[in-house]
Amino acid sequence: MNLFPNAKILDVNLSSGEIITRTLPGEIYRLYPGGSALGLYLALQEMEPGIDPLSPENMLVFSVSALTALPISGISRLTVTAKSPLTGTMGDSQAGGFFPVHFKANGWDAAVFRGKSDKPVYLYIDGDKVTLKDASKAWGKITGEAEDVIREEVGDKDIEIAQIGPAGENLVKYACIINMCNRANGRNGMGAVMGSKNLKAVVVKKGKPMKAYDNEKFQALAKSVKERLEENEAVAGLGKYGTDGDLEGFHEEGFLPTNNWTTGHFPEGAKNITGTTMYETILKERDTCYACAVRCKRVVEIPGVVDPLYGGPEYETCATLGSYCGVTSLETVSLANQLCNMYGLDTISCGATISFAMECYEKGLITDKDTDGLVLKFGNNEVVPTIVEKIAKREGLGDLLAEGSYRAAQKIGKEAIPLSMSVKGQELPAHMPQFKPAVGLIYAVNPFGADHQSSEHDVFLVMPEDSRERQRLAQLGVWKGYDNPFVIDEEKVRFALDSQKYFSVLDTLCLCQFVWGPAWELYGPDDMVNLCKYGLGWDTSIYELMLVGERRINMMRYFNAREGFSKADDKLPERIFEPFKDGPSKGVCVDKKAFEEAKELYYALAGWDQETGNPTDTVLKKLSLGWLLEKK
Amino acid sequence: MNLFPNAKILDVNLSSGEIITRTLPGEIYRLYPGGSALGLYLALQEMEPGIDPLSPENMLVFSVSALTALPISGISRLTVTAKSPLTGTMGDSQAGGFFPVHFKANGWDAAVFRGKSDKPVYLYIDGDKVTLKDASKAWGKITGEAEDVIREEVGDKDIEIAQIGPAGENLVKYACIINMCNRANGRNGMGAVMGSKNLKAVVVKKGKPMKAYDNEKFQALAKSVKERLEENEAVAGLGKYGTDGDLEGFHEEGFLPTNNWTTGHFPEGAKNITGTTMYETILKERDTCYACAVRCKRVVEIPGVVDPLYGGPEYETCATLGSYCGVTSLETVSLANQLCNMYGLDTISCGATISFAMECYEKGLITDKDTDGLVLKFGNNEVVPTIVEKIAKREGLGDLLAEGSYRAAQKIGKEAIPLSMSVKGQELPAHMPQFKPAVGLIYAVNPFGADHQSSEHDVFLVMPEDSRERQRLAQLGVWKGYDNPFVIDEEKVRFALDSQKYFSVLDTLCLCQFVWGPAWELYGPDDMVNLCKYGLGWDTSIYELMLVGERRINMMRYFNAREGFSKADDKLPERIFEPFKDGPSKGVCVDKKAFEEAKELYYALAGWDQETGNPTDTVLKKLSLGWLLEKK
Repeated sequence: MNLFPNAKILDVNLSSGEIITRTLPGEIYRLYPGGSALGLYLALQEMEPGIDPLSPENMLVFSVSALTALPISGISRLTVTAKSPLTGTMGDSQAGGFFPVHFKANGWDAAVFRGKSDKPVYLYIDGDKVTLKDASKAWGKITGEAEDVIREEVGDKDIEIAQIGPAGENLVKYACIINMCNRANGRNGMGAVMGSKNLKAVVVKKGKPMKAYDNEKFQALAKSVKERLEENEAVAGLGKYGTDGDLEGFHEEGFLPTNNWTTGHFPEGAKNITGTTMYETILKERDTCYACAVRCKRVVEIPGVVDPLYGGPEYETCATLGSYCGVTSLETVSLANQLCNMYGLDTISCGATISFAMECYEKGLITDKDTDGLVLKFGNNEVVPTIVEKIAKREGLGDLLAEGSYRAAQKIGKEAIPLSMSVKGQELPAHMPQFKPAVGLIYAVNPFGADHQSSEHDVFLVMPEDSRERQRLAQLGVWKGYDNPFVIDEEKVRFALDSQKYFSVLDTLCLCQFVWGPAWELYGPDDMVNLCKYGLGWDTSIYELMLVGERRINMMRYFNAREGFSKADDKLPERIFEPFKDGPSKGVCVDKKAFEEAKELYYALAGWDQETGNPTDTVLKKLSLGWLLEKK
Repeated sequence: MNLFPNAKILDVNLSSGEIITRTLPGEIYRLYPGGSALGLYLALQEMEPGIDPLSPENMLVFSVSALTALPISGISRLTVTAKSPLTGTMGDSQAGGFFPVHFKANGWDAAVFRGKSDKPVYLYIDGDKVTLKDASKAWGKITGEAEDVIREEVGDKDIEIAQIGPAGENLVKYACIINMCNRANGRNGMGAVMGSKNLKAVVVKKGKPMKAYDNEKFQALAKSVKERLEENEAVAGLGKYGTDGDLEGFHEEGFLPTNNWTTGHFPEGAKNITGTTMYETILKERDTCYACAVRCKRVVEIPGVVDPLYGGPEYETCATLGSYCGVTSLETVSLANQLCNMYGLDTISCGATISFAMECYEKGLITDKDTDGLVLKFGNNEVVPTIVEKIAKREGLGDLLAEGSYRAAQKIGKEAIPLSMSVKGQELPAHMPQFKPAVGLIYAVNPFGADHQSSEHDVFLVMPEDSRERQRLAQLGVWKGYDNPFVIDEEKVRFALDSQKYFSVLDTLCLCQFVWGPAWELYGPDDMVNLCKYGLGWDTSIYELMLVGERRINMMRYFNAREGFSKADDKLPERIFEPFKDGPSKGVCVDKKAFEEAKELYYALAGWDQETGNPTDTVLKKLSLGWLLEKK
């Protein structure tokens, strides 16, 4: 066989309606084997710096990986890439579901969307038959209704739809892309970019799974998931209680972001909105992505209030639309989650922006005049769903909040700025740097703003040395154990960077971190190599894969440097460095000096310039990215 | 199980006679899991900079690895480490045979020798029973006779002996350590260090192989060697013709170092001294190291001249004692090889130093007065064995040449200096940088002087993309193919550095590169990981292993920096940059500018300071070597 399969790329010019097929040779595809690595490669070939993210010049890329469509757990992930209207950096967002695998099953590795359609359209993919269709009937509709319209028009039930809701149409800066009405490419506002192009949806005809290169060994690998799943409590817990299973535990330790991060405990509501409560009350069923044995997805139902079509809230959602806002009701959280999925909003930025507005209101920085009389107080449950809808529709205060907390703060005034809990304009997810300083470091330096899925979490390092998780991490040369997780030292920085590279591999190969994460039980680094070998005949090693991961991160930083980003943008909100005033974590904060030192060391280990935080020519050359320098 | 087994270290104070047992905890041993990584770790704990390599302050370390004694091909390798009297750097030298596996089978991972015995001794190891014995009867004897003396004294046939010959006793700067009378820890003058301590030999009682952690999988891995061996021509060729099989081919291409590197072709003698001729004439049998299926070792016999006890010449020896000196007779080469093994001399430095002397003689820089009438002309076959003996005994001109070509040149005078084909005082092996520029780069930057076994050779990159060799290298992210091997560009530098790291893993785990090399047929990177898993229960990855390899290189560079070495010492002899005047390679040379640029990039990729070429604090921290900085 050849070293690597070629990539087949759909290139759609929405301005002209022209659709062409491009082939990327295997020797190039192997360097950028999927996800945003592929998206970045395509964008950096031609996209100029300084463009408006919502202009036709932005390139929106849907991509999967060379592995997607293999029938195994944790494999069905879609990446969407474009310059982000929220952060101004290269944007990157992943979603699960069934869409990704069927996109690939049609023979495509990526779809590039450029230009802007003069009227709403959707793209229909049936193998090599690819057509742009009029979306005027679906435009303006919430996701569930738009699905019905499209299904009826296409006249085929065997389709998967990734679409934007009204929020994307209205260019809400954190609008998402939704498939199955409940799986979101949530972050970085990729839905707004799609909306700016008048692209309502991408529709794929369902296809068949890929045939594994060595089917016998592949099946044995896939089979082992089930066995390991049955043996492992953490995985079983994730399956049973979902990602929200730990919410109450975070509160008990004092690290559940509450009331816009002013405290880490939430005695009023943590118990109500935690995963075990969800399991015992409104959980209707557990849903799964394609071929996945974990079944972590929630489906909740509250008759007359919450429709199971829109899934159920993840941990992040229960926090951002819950504790961030002081919301004490699971019903409210579930309803707000449903509204986000109906309208196509990222629940994290949405909830965090509302909590920001609440603090502004409580501090008198915005008043009833600004809110049309809505009482934006922490704990005012009923106001949250109302505001979500206003944001999606850009009504009243919603129009301001649709810009995200960072831009809204600029408009509200100087005093509001420290209240925006964001990095590079993107709101913080619900993992506190005070508790997970390595994650906090990655929040700061991550190329597309604060993200909790771009590195491994510190907590694995407090596990026993002979635990499976620690042994997995040791495969990456991550050694040091910690009695408590609050430390950020030299070894922690290495851990942060190396695990960021590993997660970058996952996001390039479009693998789910809950299944393929470095410290996770299901598959470890060795298994990921075997997946590549048995699944694709790709004779690789973790060394090559880590280079892939590092390459993607560096391409992003390079992209950002062209846009004027530098070290000064790699910062955490000041609140992170201020000791908690109450609760079990009273007195705890991130030490600013230690954090700054960690950042310096991180740059050095990454091979980035100490003054600017941007990739050096050397590291670009090391990563086979010398061609970027020739383009300069 | 624990993360890694503990290391059991024998610590022998030759001054006091005290012998103690030290235990290195598994969490440290895993960072330095054998070979010179372990030797360096031990030395850097306590050895001060600036000591005389031949003083009692030098620490001589025999080490194997956590894997040694597993019954599988290519596993029985011994590393000897000490500050080198030849280079002044940290020295490092490997040998095969049966000694290494039996050393380990006695339960030991390393033996440290410190101080100096007041009379000649040898160490006898029988499990935990370790004794220093009087070596006065063996002292002064050639290796074969010393073996007999020791065997008789010990009164046990089931022993293995690693010893120095008279050259080591006489502190010849490139004296080696020999086991089985024909396996040499050849380079860097480790035999002189042993001699300076009055340590004649280390003797081990034969032991039993280690039990594999997962015997079933381990056996399957071991079995596959035989199968792959049968399928592969290159390996079969190595087995049949030995390492010398390619000598004539190098000559035909114009890259066989001849007449002290003044030309690359050797029409007068190449055919006589090549491996196929050896196979067809004097080869008595093929020998093997412990458990190895390759059988690359030569055993030659010329009745009345060459005794099979002393093995047979490798490629390097056929070149250095052959073409380097213009020697046209395989009998002469074999005899000179035997003398080196009898007296305990490194054949490479020995032959290269003689060829240097020959050029000095031809240029009139030394005369008959200096040579006691010996006619030191290229091609004067009979003079070579005579000079070898004089060097070992430090007689006449031999006393000067016992210092190596670099020190001899200093004494002879300015004009002689460019004639010493050495890096950091160590003579170049017989692979020409003009043909293998990546190897040439490594000659220059390698911490312990010119070495051909510290990185992969360029020639693999001209193989077809879908060849097994190229696919193996691609596992390390080494991509680019070349139509011709003469180029040194960005990708070649990456290849040089990454393959150097890989070879450094081999030299740490004490694995033979002909079996476990990165581009070799027998085992690839994935197999090395499996060896660790099945053999030891060490759940590792190539990523961790490459960190191990990088750590060893950086420890060496750090050691050297303390000794005052820097960028200025990373240079090739000027002759390499001068075009060949004749033969098939006429006009070819290494481009100096390209070489200097490659060196700069190499430093940058290695994370070393551009001004000094020494490891930065950052790279030391990355490699868990921060403790070195604390010691400063």
